[in-house]
Amino acid sequence: MNVLIVHAHPEPHSFTAAMKDAAVATLSRAGHSVVVSDLYAQGFNPVASAADFRDRADPDYLVYALEQRHGYETGTLAPDIAAEIDKLKACDLLLLTFPLFWFSVPAILKGWIDRVLISGLTYGGKRFYDRGGLAGKNATLGLTLGARPHMFGADAIHGEIETMLRPLLRGTLYYTGMQVLPPFYGWHVPYVGHAARSQILEDWRRHLLHLEGATPLAFPRLSDFDERLYPKPRGGAG
Amino acid sequence: MNVLIVHAHPEPHSFTAAMKDAAVATLSRAGHSVVVSDLYAQGFNPVASAADFRDRADPDYLVYALEQRHGYETGTLAPDIAAEIDKLKACDLLLLTFPLFWFSVPAILKGWIDRVLISGLTYGGKRFYDRGGLAGKNATLGLTLGARPHMFGADAIHGEIETMLRPLLRGTLYYTGMQVLPPFYGWHVPYVGHAARSQILEDWRRHLLHLEGATPLAFPRLSDFDERLYPKPRGGAG
Repeated sequence: MNVLIVHAHPEPHSFTAAMKDAAVATLSRAGHSVVVSDLYAQGFNPVASAADFRDRADPDYLVYALEQRHGYETGTLAPDIAAEIDKLKACDLLLLTFPLFWFSVPAILKGWIDRVLISGLTYGGKRFYDRGGLAGKNATLGLTLGARPHMFGADAIHGEIETMLRPLLRGTLYYTGMQVLPPFYGWHVPYVGHAARSQILEDWRRHLLHLEGATPLAFPRLSDFDERLYPKPRGGAG
Repeated sequence: MNVLIVHAHPEPHSFTAAMKDAAVATLSRAGHSVVVSDLYAQGFNPVASAADFRDRADPDYLVYALEQRHGYETGTLAPDIAAEIDKLKACDLLLLTFPLFWFSVPAILKGWIDRVLISGLTYGGKRFYDRGGLAGKNATLGLTLGARPHMFGADAIHGEIETMLRPLLRGTLYYTGMQVLPPFYGWHVPYVGHAARSQILEDWRRHLLHLEGATPLAFPRLSDFDERLYPKPRGGAG
């Protein structure tokens, strides 16, 4: 398996970085090929802008998604985007490692999503969800957060964590056609000591080694919707 | 009312920018004081990093939220962050105008959230949701998207839009204590012509003029949870 880890944490010696390093070691030892995009270390620019396109379909008015298509077709995307796209296309598993910032990814990682998951390649028109351009690949998350598990759940203060993460899990990763494997949560990380952190790393390594057999999260399939994307009537024989 | 509009769109002549301009004109004419942070025009840096702190509580290991507290208390936050915090503190209504990127805000606006909604001022410990540091203020969104309304809803392909936006509406705006007023959606904007866009702007102006009487979105209150943030038993007398 070719694995692309996209990592985003402002502290190089963070526990999240230790999770990233453990993923590299564990997956490599298991025979996989691992590539890392360490966004802070790369000084990755997260701001989607006109500067992303060396040639413009419309030089006077920027429609970002249309210029992504044009830039990809003509090979004129900014080099930093093109390099990330090459890594993305080569991977079988995309793994995002990050600390949860505002129940979402840090801005530098949101910018990787905005700029690298380009229209035309990863989605377009009715090519999304199970028909997205990255179908056949898997994706998942390894994230750290301050909260404890009991703060998430049907009656919990923040509701279900996978609902809070819906725009990322379903609206981004699955949108591009990737199967989304169960995320791993490093709970309460800022507040726990060495022993608890060691246990989280141990659980993380075991989680990674079982990813290949894991059941993907269940999301809607386009075949349940008609051409205009209205839900098809349920049940009943043809 | 003092209004802070935080605007993020890479095209200065976009329809979203026209919505921002219409908001400035409409709210000013109605007697409100309006300040705009146009993040692309400002060249706002969205990357949370050690460079945000001119003095460090711990120079050797960056815990971003702890340094936010220290920087705020000692007046040593980076000047661009401090300037945005001043605008935020002065506002009664925070209005975010942006195009939906991956069912979320563009990275430059996520970075404004990461860097400006600092720990200590906007939340901390059990000061969140209705007890958050910005209680007493209102917040809302004016956003544009490619989708049509029928693509959202209980049985729709993308589910409820306010569920897709949960990390932003509940996990960010409400988390800081602000009441969240109903968002405004500029549907299908990239695909509609002049007449439809004029109608959206007209609806938007009317929406803005009725915001003050609007019912905030309903979210959990901390009084329904115990000291450890477990849900309190429901019903029954003392």
